[in-house]
Amino acid sequence: MWIQKTITLKPQKRGFHLITNEIINQLPELRDIKIGMMHVLIKHTSASLTINENADPSVRDDFESFFNDVVAENKAYFTHTYEGSDDMPAHLKGSIIGFDLNIPITNGYPNLGTWQGIYLCEHRNQGGSRQLVITTHGQ
Amino acid sequence: MWIQKTITLKPQKRGFHLITNEIINQLPELRDIKIGMMHVLIKHTSASLTINENADPSVRDDFESFFNDVVAENKAYFTHTYEGSDDMPAHLKGSIIGFDLNIPITNGYPNLGTWQGIYLCEHRNQGGSRQLVITTHGQ
Amino acid sequence: MWIQKTITLKPQKRGFHLITNEIINQLPELRDIKIGMMHVLIKHTSASLTINENADPSVRDDFESFFNDVVAENKAYFTHTYEGSDDMPAHLKGSIIGFDLNIPITNGYPNLGTWQGIYLCEHRNQGGSRQLVITTHGQ
Repeated sequence: MWIQKTITLKPQKRGFHLITNEIINQLPELRDIKIGMMHVLIKHTSASLTINENADPSVRDDFESFFNDVVAENKAYFTHTYEGSDDMPAHLKGSIIGFDLNIPITNGYPNLGTWQGIYLCEHRNQGGSRQLVITTHGQ
Repeated sequence: MWIQKTITLKPQKRGFHLITNEIINQLPELRDIKIGMMHVLIKHTSASLTINENADPSVRDDFESFFNDVVAENKAYFTHTYEGSDDMPAHLKGSIIGFDLNIPITNGYPNLGTWQGIYLCEHRNQGGSRQLVITTHGQ
Repeated sequence: MWIQKTITLKPQKRGFHLITNEIINQLPELRDIKIGMMHVLIKHTSASLTINENADPSVRDDFESFFNDVVAENKAYFTHTYEGSDDMPAHLKGSIIGFDLNIPITNGYPNLGTWQGIYLCEHRNQGGSRQLVITTHGQ
Protein backbone atom coordinates (compact mmCIF):
# COMPACT_ATOMS: atom_id res chain seq x y z
CA MET A 1 0.00 0.00 0.00
CA TRP A 2 1.47 3.30 -1.15
CA ILE A 3 0.04 6.71 -0.25
CA GLN A 4 1.53 9.98 -1.40
CA LYS A 5 0.30 13.48 -0.74
CA THR A 6 1.51 17.05 -0.69
CA ILE A 7 0.66 19.17 2.32
CA THR A 8 1.30 22.82 3.05
CA LEU A 9 2.55 23.92 6.43
CA LYS A 10 1.41 27.14 8.00
CA PRO A 11 4.06 29.88 7.70
CA GLN A 12 6.48 30.16 10.60
CA LYS A 13 8.93 32.82 11.58
CA ARG A 14 12.65 32.12 11.32
CA GLY A 15 13.56 29.48 13.88
CA PHE A 16 12.85 25.90 14.90
CA HIS A 17 9.25 24.78 15.30
CA LEU A 18 7.64 21.60 16.57
CA ILE A 19 5.28 20.34 13.86
CA THR A 20 4.70 16.69 14.77
CA ASN A 21 0.96 17.13 15.24
CA GLU A 22 0.53 19.42 12.25
CA ILE A 23 1.90 16.59 10.09
CA ILE A 24 0.26 13.61 11.77
CA ASN A 25 -3.18 15.23 11.81
CA GLN A 26 -3.05 15.38 8.02
CA LEU A 27 -2.25 11.67 7.73
CA PRO A 28 -5.27 9.65 8.88
CA GLU A 29 -4.10 6.98 6.38
CA LEU A 30 -1.35 5.97 8.79
CA ARG A 31 -3.93 4.18 10.95
CA ASP A 32 -4.21 1.42 8.34
CA ILE A 33 -0.50 0.59 8.31
CA LYS A 34 0.71 -2.08 10.70
CA ILE A 35 4.36 -2.02 9.67
CA GLY A 36 5.76 0.53 7.27
CA MET A 37 7.70 3.69 6.61
CA MET A 38 6.79 7.32 6.19
CA HIS A 39 9.01 9.68 4.20
CA VAL A 40 8.71 13.45 4.44
CA LEU A 41 10.49 15.77 1.99
CA ILE A 42 10.45 19.53 2.28
CA LYS A 43 10.47 20.88 -1.28
CA HIS A 44 12.70 23.86 -0.56
CA THR A 45 16.39 24.64 -0.14
CA SER A 46 16.20 27.20 2.65
CA ALA A 47 14.09 25.36 5.21
CA SER A 48 14.81 21.90 6.57
CA LEU A 49 13.50 19.08 8.75
CA THR A 50 14.93 17.32 11.75
CA ILE A 51 13.96 15.32 14.81
CA ASN A 52 14.73 16.58 18.29
CA GLU A 53 13.44 17.09 21.79
CA ASN A 54 9.72 17.68 21.88
CA ALA A 55 9.42 19.05 25.40
CA ASP A 56 11.26 22.20 26.42
CA PRO A 57 11.04 25.12 23.92
CA SER A 58 14.44 26.33 25.13
CA VAL A 59 16.01 23.55 23.06
CA ARG A 60 14.54 25.08 19.92
CA ASP A 61 15.70 28.56 20.91
CA ASP A 62 19.23 27.25 21.38
CA PHE A 63 19.11 25.57 17.97
CA GLU A 64 18.43 28.96 16.39
CA SER A 65 21.24 30.62 18.36
CA PHE A 66 23.73 27.90 17.56
CA PHE A 67 23.09 27.75 13.84
CA ASN A 68 23.16 31.53 13.57
CA ASP A 69 26.53 31.45 15.30
CA VAL A 70 28.21 28.69 13.28
CA VAL A 71 26.55 29.50 9.95
CA ALA A 72 26.76 33.25 10.36
CA GLU A 73 25.45 35.75 7.85
CA ASN A 74 27.80 38.00 5.89
CA LYS A 75 30.81 35.68 5.84
CA ALA A 76 33.50 37.50 3.87
CA TYR A 77 33.80 34.65 1.38
CA PHE A 78 30.10 34.47 0.47
CA THR A 79 29.49 35.36 -3.18
CA HIS A 80 25.82 34.37 -3.39
CA THR A 81 24.54 37.48 -1.67
CA TYR A 82 21.89 39.06 -3.92
CA GLU A 83 18.96 37.20 -2.32
CA GLY A 84 19.65 38.71 1.11
CA SER A 85 22.09 38.01 3.92
CA ASP A 86 19.87 35.24 5.30
CA ASP A 87 19.79 33.31 2.01
CA MET A 88 23.19 31.62 1.72
CA PRO A 89 23.24 30.64 5.42
CA ALA A 90 19.76 29.17 4.88
CA HIS A 91 21.03 26.93 2.07
CA LEU A 92 23.96 25.77 4.21
CA LYS A 93 21.86 25.12 7.31
CA GLY A 94 19.49 23.14 5.12
CA SER A 95 22.18 20.78 3.86
CA ILE A 96 23.69 20.40 7.33
CA ILE A 97 20.34 19.52 8.91
CA GLY A 98 18.74 17.78 5.94
CA PHE A 99 15.59 18.12 3.88
CA ASP A 100 13.84 14.88 4.64
CA LEU A 101 12.85 12.43 7.37
CA ASN A 102 12.21 8.71 7.37
CA ILE A 103 10.04 7.53 10.20
CA PRO A 104 8.99 3.94 10.90
CA ILE A 105 5.28 3.27 11.31
CA THR A 106 4.10 0.72 13.85
CA ASN A 107 0.45 -0.16 14.45
CA GLY A 108 -0.82 3.01 12.80
CA TYR A 109 1.49 5.52 14.43
CA PRO A 110 4.96 7.00 13.87
CA ASN A 111 7.34 4.95 15.99
CA LEU A 112 9.37 7.80 17.47
CA GLY A 113 11.10 7.89 20.83
CA THR A 114 9.30 9.38 23.82
CA TRP A 115 11.21 12.65 23.52
CA GLN A 116 11.38 12.84 19.74
CA GLY A 117 9.37 15.38 17.79
CA ILE A 118 9.52 16.69 14.22
CA TYR A 119 11.00 20.16 13.74
CA LEU A 120 10.42 22.52 10.86
CA CYS A 121 13.64 24.50 10.62
CA GLU A 122 12.77 27.82 8.98
CA HIS A 123 16.00 29.50 7.96
CA ARG A 124 14.63 32.51 6.06
CA ASN A 125 13.33 35.72 7.61
CA GLN A 126 10.28 35.53 5.37
CA GLY A 127 9.99 31.88 4.38
CA GLY A 128 6.26 31.77 3.81
CA SER A 129 4.32 28.52 3.49
CA ARG A 130 6.42 25.40 3.02
CA GLN A 131 5.37 22.33 1.07
CA LEU A 132 5.99 18.75 2.11
CA VAL A 133 5.65 15.62 -0.02
CA ILE A 134 4.76 12.70 2.21
CA THR A 135 5.09 9.15 0.95
CA THR A 136 3.94 6.27 3.12
CA HIS A 137 4.24 2.60 2.38
CA GLY A 138 3.51 -0.47 4.43
CA GLN A 139 1.26 -3.37 5.09
CA MET B 1 8.14 -8.66 3.01
CA TRP B 2 8.31 -6.26 5.95
CA ILE B 3 10.21 -6.95 9.16
CA GLN B 4 10.39 -4.56 12.07
CA LYS B 5 12.11 -5.01 15.39
CA THR B 6 13.49 -2.99 18.26
CA ILE B 7 16.98 -3.78 19.47
CA THR B 8 18.96 -2.41 22.38
CA LEU B 9 22.60 -1.50 21.97
CA LYS B 10 25.08 -2.07 24.73
CA PRO B 11 25.94 1.18 26.56
CA GLN B 12 28.93 3.08 25.22
CA LYS B 13 30.96 5.90 26.64
CA ARG B 14 30.73 9.33 25.02
CA GLY B 15 32.29 9.16 21.57
CA PHE B 16 31.95 7.45 18.21
CA HIS B 17 31.68 3.66 18.10
CA LEU B 18 31.65 1.16 15.26
CA ILE B 19 28.51 -0.97 15.63
CA THR B 20 28.06 -2.55 12.20
CA ASN B 21 28.37 -6.09 13.50
CA GLU B 22 26.33 -5.46 16.64
CA ILE B 23 23.44 -4.49 14.36
CA ILE B 24 23.87 -7.05 11.60
CA ASN B 25 24.21 -9.94 14.02
CA GLN B 26 20.73 -9.16 15.30
CA LEU B 27 19.23 -9.25 11.81
CA PRO B 28 19.39 -12.81 10.46
CA GLU B 29 16.21 -11.94 8.51
CA LEU B 30 18.31 -9.94 6.04
CA ARG B 31 19.54 -13.19 4.48
CA ASP B 32 16.14 -13.71 2.86
CA ILE B 33 16.08 -10.35 1.08
CA LYS B 34 17.51 -10.24 -2.42
CA ILE B 35 16.80 -6.55 -3.08
CA GLY B 36 15.54 -4.20 -0.41
CA MET B 37 16.14 -1.48 2.11
CA MET B 38 16.94 -1.40 5.80
CA HIS B 39 16.07 1.61 7.94
CA VAL B 40 17.57 2.20 11.36
CA LEU B 41 16.21 4.86 13.73
CA ILE B 42 17.78 5.67 17.07
CA LYS B 43 14.90 6.59 19.40
CA HIS B 44 16.77 9.34 21.25
CA THR B 45 17.71 12.99 20.79
CA SER B 46 21.19 12.96 22.29
CA ALA B 47 22.80 10.08 20.40
CA SER B 48 22.93 9.72 16.64
CA LEU B 49 23.89 7.43 13.77
CA THR B 50 26.21 7.89 10.83
CA ILE B 51 28.30 5.97 8.34
CA ASN B 52 32.03 6.45 8.19
CA GLU B 53 35.41 4.76 7.92
CA ASN B 54 35.41 1.31 9.47
CA ALA B 55 39.17 0.79 9.70
CA ASP B 56 41.35 3.14 11.70
CA PRO B 57 39.99 4.05 15.20
CA SER B 58 41.80 7.40 14.96
CA VAL B 59 39.01 8.58 12.64
CA ARG B 60 36.49 8.05 15.42
CA ASP B 61 38.71 9.83 17.94
CA ASP B 62 38.96 12.81 15.62
CA PHE B 63 35.18 12.85 15.19
CA GLU B 64 34.82 13.27 18.94
CA SER B 65 37.44 16.04 19.05
CA PHE B 66 35.93 17.90 16.13
CA PHE B 67 32.35 17.86 17.33
CA ASN B 68 33.42 18.88 20.84
CA ASP B 69 35.24 21.81 19.27
CA VAL B 70 32.52 23.08 16.93
CA VAL B 71 29.57 22.23 19.16
CA ALA B 72 31.25 23.26 22.38
CA GLU B 73 29.68 23.03 25.81
CA ASN B 74 28.78 26.12 27.79
CA LYS B 75 28.15 28.45 24.87
CA ALA B 76 27.12 31.79 26.39
CA TYR B 77 23.84 31.79 24.48
CA PHE B 78 22.66 28.36 25.64
CA THR B 79 19.52 28.59 27.75
CA HIS B 80 18.71 24.86 27.96
CA THR B 81 21.31 24.10 30.60
CA TYR B 82 19.56 22.32 33.48
CA GLU B 83 20.20 18.81 32.13
CA GLY B 84 23.97 19.29 32.22
CA SER B 85 26.55 20.99 30.04
CA ASP B 86 26.72 17.98 27.70
CA ASP B 87 22.96 17.98 27.00
CA MET B 88 22.35 20.87 24.60
CA PRO B 89 25.48 20.07 22.55
CA ALA B 90 24.22 16.48 22.37
CA HIS B 91 20.90 17.61 20.86
CA LEU B 92 22.72 19.78 18.32
CA LYS B 93 25.24 17.11 17.35
CA GLY B 94 22.33 14.73 16.90
CA SER B 95 20.54 16.94 14.40
CA ILE B 96 23.76 17.72 12.54
CA ILE B 97 24.71 14.05 12.19
CA GLY B 98 21.21 12.59 12.00
CA PHE B 99 19.17 9.99 13.83
CA ASP B 100 18.62 7.41 11.14
CA LEU B 101 20.25 5.43 8.36
CA ASN B 102 18.91 3.93 5.16
CA ILE B 103 21.01 1.11 3.81
CA PRO B 104 20.35 -0.89 0.64
CA ILE B 105 20.24 -4.66 0.95
CA THR B 106 21.64 -6.81 -1.83
CA ASN B 107 21.64 -10.60 -1.77
CA GLY B 108 21.08 -10.79 1.97
CA TYR B 109 23.64 -8.25 3.09
CA PRO B 110 23.86 -4.49 3.62
CA ASN B 111 25.34 -3.05 0.44
CA LEU B 112 27.85 -0.66 1.97
CA GLY B 113 31.15 0.47 0.50
CA THR B 114 34.32 -1.39 1.46
CA TRP B 115 35.32 1.26 3.97
CA GLN B 116 31.86 2.10 5.27
CA GLY B 117 30.76 1.10 8.75
CA ILE B 118 27.90 2.16 11.01
CA TYR B 119 28.76 4.48 13.89
CA LEU B 120 26.83 4.96 17.10
CA CYS B 121 27.54 8.57 18.07
CA GLU B 122 27.07 8.79 21.83
CA HIS B 123 26.93 12.46 22.77
CA ARG B 124 26.11 12.19 26.48
CA ASN B 125 28.57 11.47 29.26
CA GLN B 126 26.17 8.86 30.67
CA GLY B 127 23.97 7.88 27.74
CA GLY B 128 23.11 4.37 28.86
CA SER B 129 21.56 1.80 26.56
CA ARG B 130 20.19 3.12 23.30
CA GLN B 131 17.24 1.68 21.42
CA LEU B 132 17.01 1.24 17.67
CA VAL B 133 13.92 0.52 15.59
CA ILE B 134 14.94 -1.42 12.49
CA THR B 135 12.55 -1.74 9.56
CA THR B 136 13.51 -3.88 6.59
CA HIS B 137 11.57 -4.36 3.42
CA GLY B 138 12.37 -6.13 0.21
CA GLN B 139 11.84 -9.10 -2.01
CA MET C 1 8.54 -3.45 -8.12
CA TRP C 2 12.13 -3.19 -6.90
CA ILE C 3 15.03 -2.05 -9.06
CA GLN C 4 18.60 -1.78 -7.83
CA LYS C 5 21.67 -0.79 -9.76
CA THR C 6 25.16 0.56 -9.23
CA ILE C 7 26.27 3.50 -11.30
CA THR C 8 29.61 5.26 -11.53
CA LEU C 9 29.80 9.02 -11.60
CA LYS C 10 32.36 10.82 -13.68
CA PRO C 11 35.26 12.11 -11.56
CA GLN C 12 34.88 15.64 -10.25
CA LYS C 13 37.34 18.04 -8.71
CA ARG C 14 36.99 18.92 -5.03
CA GLY C 15 33.82 20.94 -4.55
CA PHE C 16 30.07 20.74 -4.95
CA HIS C 17 28.61 19.58 -8.26
CA LEU C 18 25.10 19.43 -9.64
CA ILE C 19 24.49 15.84 -10.81
CA THR C 20 20.70 15.60 -11.03
CA ASN C 21 20.71 14.82 -14.74
CA GLU C 22 23.72 12.51 -14.58
CA ILE C 23 21.72 10.35 -12.18
CA ILE C 24 18.27 10.60 -13.75
CA ASN C 25 19.57 9.83 -17.23
CA GLN C 26 20.78 6.47 -15.95
CA LEU C 27 17.37 5.60 -14.52
CA PRO C 28 14.90 5.11 -17.37
CA GLU C 29 13.14 2.61 -15.07
CA LEU C 30 11.68 5.50 -13.07
CA ARG C 31 9.20 6.14 -15.87
CA ASP C 32 7.25 3.01 -14.88
CA ILE C 33 6.74 4.07 -11.26
CA LYS C 34 3.59 6.02 -10.46
CA ILE C 35 4.20 6.35 -6.72
CA GLY C 36 7.41 5.27 -5.06
CA MET C 37 10.76 6.10 -3.55
CA MET C 38 14.31 6.28 -4.86
CA HIS C 39 17.27 5.81 -2.54
CA VAL C 40 20.79 6.83 -3.52
CA LEU C 41 23.82 5.78 -1.45
CA ILE C 42 27.34 6.94 -2.19
CA LYS C 43 29.64 4.03 -1.28
CA HIS C 44 32.44 6.18 0.10
CA THR C 45 33.34 8.02 3.29
CA SER C 46 35.01 11.11 1.81
CA ALA C 47 32.35 12.26 -0.66
CA SER C 48 28.72 12.90 0.14
CA LEU C 49 25.31 13.74 -1.31
CA THR C 50 22.89 16.55 -0.62
CA ILE C 51 20.05 18.49 -2.17
CA ASN C 52 20.33 22.21 -2.74
CA GLU C 53 19.74 25.08 -5.14
CA ASN C 54 20.00 24.01 -8.76
CA ALA C 55 20.32 27.43 -10.35
CA ASP C 56 23.17 29.76 -9.47
CA PRO C 57 26.65 28.11 -9.35
CA SER C 58 27.72 30.69 -6.75
CA VAL C 59 25.76 28.68 -4.17
CA ARG C 60 27.99 25.68 -4.80
CA ASP C 61 31.13 27.82 -4.60
CA ASP C 62 30.00 29.16 -1.24
CA PHE C 63 29.33 25.63 0.00
CA GLU C 64 32.97 24.75 -0.70
CA SER C 65 34.21 27.92 1.05
CA PHE C 66 32.01 27.40 4.07
CA PHE C 67 32.87 23.76 4.67
CA ASN C 68 36.58 24.46 4.19
CA ASP C 69 36.26 27.17 6.83
CA VAL C 70 34.30 25.25 9.47
CA VAL C 71 35.88 21.85 8.83
CA ALA C 72 39.38 23.20 8.30
CA GLU C 73 42.40 21.07 7.45
CA ASN C 74 45.25 20.62 9.89
CA LYS C 75 43.28 21.07 13.10
CA ALA C 76 45.78 20.65 15.94
CA TYR C 77 43.76 17.82 17.46
CA PHE C 78 43.58 15.68 14.32
CA THR C 79 45.41 12.37 14.75
CA HIS C 80 44.25 10.66 11.53
CA THR C 81 46.65 12.53 9.29
CA TYR C 82 48.60 9.98 7.25
CA GLU C 83 46.17 9.95 4.32
CA GLY C 84 46.69 13.67 3.64
CA SER C 85 45.40 16.88 5.16
CA ASP C 86 42.22 16.71 3.11
CA ASP C 87 41.28 13.23 4.39
CA MET C 88 40.00 13.74 7.92
CA PRO C 89 38.02 16.88 6.97
CA ALA C 90 36.51 14.83 4.13
CA HIS C 91 35.26 12.18 6.55
CA LEU C 92 33.75 14.85 8.81
CA LYS C 93 32.11 16.78 5.98
CA GLY C 94 30.65 13.49 4.78
CA SER C 95 28.95 12.72 8.07
CA ILE C 96 27.72 16.30 8.46
CA ILE C 97 26.19 16.37 4.97
CA GLY C 98 25.24 12.71 4.68
CA PHE C 99 25.91 9.82 2.33
CA ASP C 100 22.46 9.13 0.98
CA LEU C 101 19.30 10.66 -0.39
CA ASN C 102 15.67 9.55 -0.38
CA ILE C 103 13.59 11.10 -3.11
CA PRO C 104 9.88 10.50 -3.73
CA ILE C 105 8.86 9.44 -7.23
CA THR C 106 5.63 10.72 -8.71
CA ASN C 107 4.37 9.79 -12.17
CA GLY C 108 7.76 8.60 -13.37
CA TYR C 109 9.86 11.48 -12.12
CA PRO C 110 11.68 12.53 -8.93
CA ASN C 111 9.31 14.79 -7.04
CA LEU C 112 11.76 17.51 -6.07
CA GLY C 113 11.02 21.19 -5.51
CA THR C 114 11.49 23.63 -8.39
CA TRP C 115 14.83 24.80 -7.04
CA GLN C 116 16.09 21.48 -5.72
CA GLY C 117 18.93 19.63 -7.41
CA ILE C 118 21.19 16.76 -6.36
CA TYR C 119 24.76 17.67 -5.39
CA LEU C 120 27.78 15.41 -5.40
CA CYS C 121 29.99 16.80 -2.64
CA GLU C 122 33.56 15.80 -3.48
CA HIS C 123 35.69 16.40 -0.42
CA ARG C 124 39.01 14.93 -1.58
CA ASN C 125 41.53 16.66 -3.81
CA GLN C 126 41.77 13.52 -5.94
CA GLY C 127 38.55 11.65 -5.30
CA GLY C 128 38.33 9.81 -8.60
CA SER C 129 35.16 8.08 -9.76
CA ARG C 130 32.47 7.62 -7.15
CA GLN C 131 30.01 4.75 -7.03
CA LEU C 132 26.32 5.04 -6.19
CA VAL C 133 23.89 2.24 -5.33
CA ILE C 134 20.42 3.26 -6.40
CA THR C 135 17.38 1.38 -5.10
CA THR C 136 13.94 2.26 -6.40
CA HIS C 137 10.68 0.81 -5.30
CA GLY C 138 7.11 1.67 -6.14
CA GLN C 139 3.97 0.81 -7.98
